[in-house]
Amino acid sequence: MITLRSYLKGDWREGSGDVATLVNPATEEPIGTASTKGLDLAGAVDHARKNGGPALRAMTFAERGERLKKLSKALYEIRDSLIEASILNSGTTRSDAKFDIDGATGTLAYYASLGEKLGARRTLVDGEGEALTRSPRFWGVHVKTPRLGVAVHVNAFNFPAWGLAEKAAVALLAGVPVVTKPATATALLAFRAMERIVQSEVLPDGALQMVCGGAGDLLAHLGPQDVLSFTGSGSTGAHLRGLRNVIERSVRVNVEADSLNAAVLGDDVAPGSDTYQMFVRDVAREVTQKTGQKCTATRRVFVPRALIDRVQADLAERLAEIKIGDPSLDEVRMGPVATAQQLADVRAGIGVLIDSGARAVWGSATDVKPIGVSAGKGYFVGPVLLRADQPREARAVHEHEVFGPVVTLMPHEGAQDAAELVGLGEGGLVASAYSDDRAVVETLVLGMAPFSGRVLIGSAKIAEQAISPGTVLPSCVHGGPGRAGAGEELGGLRGLDFYMQRTALQGDRAFLDKLG
Amino acid sequence: MITLRSYLKGDWREGSGDVATLVNPATEEPIGTASTKGLDLAGAVDHARKNGGPALRAMTFAERGERLKKLSKALYEIRDSLIEASILNSGTTRSDAKFDIDGATGTLAYYASLGEKLGARRTLVDGEGEALTRSPRFWGVHVKTPRLGVAVHVNAFNFPAWGLAEKAAVALLAGVPVVTKPATATALLAFRAMERIVQSEVLPDGALQMVCGGAGDLLAHLGPQDVLSFTGSGSTGAHLRGLRNVIERSVRVNVEADSLNAAVLGDDVAPGSDTYQMFVRDVAREVTQKTGQKCTATRRVFVPRALIDRVQADLAERLAEIKIGDPSLDEVRMGPVATAQQLADVRAGIGVLIDSGARAVWGSATDVKPIGVSAGKGYFVGPVLLRADQPREARAVHEHEVFGPVVTLMPHEGAQDAAELVGLGEGGLVASAYSDDRAVVETLVLGMAPFSGRVLIGSAKIAEQAISPGTVLPSCVHGGPGRAGAGEELGGLRGLDFYMQRTALQGDRAFLDKLG
Repeated sequence: MITLRSYLKGDWREGSGDVATLVNPATEEPIGTASTKGLDLAGAVDHARKNGGPALRAMTFAERGERLKKLSKALYEIRDSLIEASILNSGTTRSDAKFDIDGATGTLAYYASLGEKLGARRTLVDGEGEALTRSPRFWGVHVKTPRLGVAVHVNAFNFPAWGLAEKAAVALLAGVPVVTKPATATALLAFRAMERIVQSEVLPDGALQMVCGGAGDLLAHLGPQDVLSFTGSGSTGAHLRGLRNVIERSVRVNVEADSLNAAVLGDDVAPGSDTYQMFVRDVAREVTQKTGQKCTATRRVFVPRALIDRVQADLAERLAEIKIGDPSLDEVRMGPVATAQQLADVRAGIGVLIDSGARAVWGSATDVKPIGVSAGKGYFVGPVLLRADQPREARAVHEHEVFGPVVTLMPHEGAQDAAELVGLGEGGLVASAYSDDRAVVETLVLGMAPFSGRVLIGSAKIAEQAISPGTVLPSCVHGGPGRAGAGEELGGLRGLDFYMQRTALQGDRAFLDKLG
Repeated sequence: MITLRSYLKGDWREGSGDVATLVNPATEEPIGTASTKGLDLAGAVDHARKNGGPALRAMTFAERGERLKKLSKALYEIRDSLIEASILNSGTTRSDAKFDIDGATGTLAYYASLGEKLGARRTLVDGEGEALTRSPRFWGVHVKTPRLGVAVHVNAFNFPAWGLAEKAAVALLAGVPVVTKPATATALLAFRAMERIVQSEVLPDGALQMVCGGAGDLLAHLGPQDVLSFTGSGSTGAHLRGLRNVIERSVRVNVEADSLNAAVLGDDVAPGSDTYQMFVRDVAREVTQKTGQKCTATRRVFVPRALIDRVQADLAERLAEIKIGDPSLDEVRMGPVATAQQLADVRAGIGVLIDSGARAVWGSATDVKPIGVSAGKGYFVGPVLLRADQPREARAVHEHEVFGPVVTLMPHEGAQDAAELVGLGEGGLVASAYSDDRAVVETLVLGMAPFSGRVLIGSAKIAEQAISPGTVLPSCVHGGPGRAGAGEELGGLRGLDFYMQRTALQGDRAFLDKLG
């Protein structure tokens, strides 16, 4: 049994009482405990503001970038032990663990390179300056400076490594200190990463702290220069957004929440074509990778009515190939979901979709025979392919996110109809469109864009080069309107805006030109 | 007595019962009534989404810009009657009325010119595209498309014309229909402007609607594609941000609220110098223009301790020149505040500042003899100069916005100290720094920027060309962190972001290059 500690005010701290137990989701065996009871979280916030912030702001972007590069390397050096922690506590296969961990080191390295490009400056200039009156001397320019508070990051259980790193990379590059809180149930991986980060001595004191266990009163201490970035359920996101101090003190909040991500197959795509194969491959991957526990996983699939039986058969064939079981076994392609609660939620969620008008056409909520696992143990659920032939009637399919290997297949009546069906999800992180017809793609892209943080367009010419739609790249924004939380992360330098204040400066041009 | 009606669903509508009375603040005589009781506000929201939105989105930016240009001209044509409405219902002098009305037509014209520059496109491209993998074909680019909902604008009582126009200009250029609600007490000017807008037939049906009177259930109908932009008190802003549907459905909200705007005189500035004169002139103007009822008016003034008596004397001399009274008289420089409630709030607020450790050194909350007004009538309050020699102890001076011709003079101990004192306001719309010393200005600007949406730097070289800090230009962002509501408006094209969804597109470069 491992005791996970919190790293606060420059030291590892152990809570007392109210202990949460972490388990191995493949065996249900306890592996560790975490508690924050009695820890001085107000002191941690204060420590970040008084020590971490000034130290980071004293550095240039290039210097902060160098630290991120070193962090990326430090974590990469213990990649194997991080993978083991992921398998043990998150129930991921080795491949799924790498997706999380390599995403973490890759995102750190990406923001390190942005820091290098920004160079020896501490302030960003936003756009071009301009004369504000008829005089060429009285000049206006917009600059961005780091906020003077702390960034609190509340992460989801599904990406303990990436969630920690992608949020921290952006905040630290912006010059804002971080208190990060992994979801307790799968915190082992984040804890191991943090041990390494602390050991590496790369960051100044107070720049990065970690709360392992409950959030306690952490959020109550946030004020007008602080930010809160949350990834998780929409209901928790709404709760955080409604906190009294968050509302009354204008704490900046970013929420990345529920999303009924959609994939659309265009009318023009012939079964068996490269584009069709890309579509089937992507959907099958998105449904099963990380056992469907990705906020970007495809939940709804819209295909031409004439092709729905064919697509159903092809997807079922792909899903049938997926071996489920003990994620430490090489042959296993899909592990359990992360917790008993997730398993219960996934099973109940499938019921909700079926009650709403979908039917299971492949797999079921309960019928699964995992390989290499003691009978009845582990939080396993097989891939489930649902189908709803009347997509506008099956409302829950567009509103209820089942966070597991579950997808619903539906017919559409053309590109415009498909875009409207995607819109029934009321905002998502990513939608994908598969077509080689320019008109079809335009209708889909422009129709889905207002509802989507990201749109991937699959086509024959890029069938081999493209990433799968569920992959979040640091260069593209991650977030979505409405149900997805109305937030934005990453997107290269765009991500820094959340951590900085944009200020219009007005004055003598000669002075302002030198300030930049 | 004028009956103000609402323009909803393509027609003028009159509410019944629950009538609010509008008065002339200089005479306290009733001049009109407004009511929204029984009006179909849900229908108005629906009308905007179903008619106004599609009509606007069908236009290019250039076409929308043309409409804005026509609106600007249409309003300019009735400038004189708008000025009369402002004097009658807002108690503004002619000069203060022009500040509001010319700001309205100017901002419409400015966004018209941006539309012309954007040209025949309907989608904005955000930044440069880039290769997402090693393949040069798989490309990423960010685009912005108009949100598919409605923009509800809830405006403050102090700028009935500009508030209407500056928010509507940005939303309409972005392609999003508007339901605008002026503050009821001073709605006459906005109503007259809307009459002209409707008469001009410039906008498509449903593009712009107006609610004159209470908001009723208007906000309860907002959902994930809608936005709410509010200007007014921090407490109302917090209430709106906490509305159940706003939180649960991720309605985008922009708040522009309380702000303890500051002006700082640098240690290097010699009394009587051009920079000093600019500083005194700006402070006096900001305290008295629109009777101090500007969200950007200077509320706190920090000067070197050695100069505080001199500044006090010079400001008092300026304030003594201000003639107060019936705003329709040519000789009058300052009219009443807008409502009886405002007068009560200003008087009470002066008491709060005095209780906190400030003392009145010129003027008082009650001693005022307005010119040309019946004895005891009108919501008049003279300029009041307060002074607090221990600025860190007089907390209310940094926290309580008195929305009238009231300012507090305080000493600072150098640029770093002054920046920290400005920060005690916990976020403001604008701060100004007056200095000709490069080091002083840098310390002030970088120290104040994280707390400020805008910073004006006054110096000898631009003393004659610069605008006063309270003037909001459409090319610069307007908004501020923390207490100021953490919002952003205007700023040229930056303002459009609030009304658009940014989406990362990933796909074949050849296709994406043409889509832009």
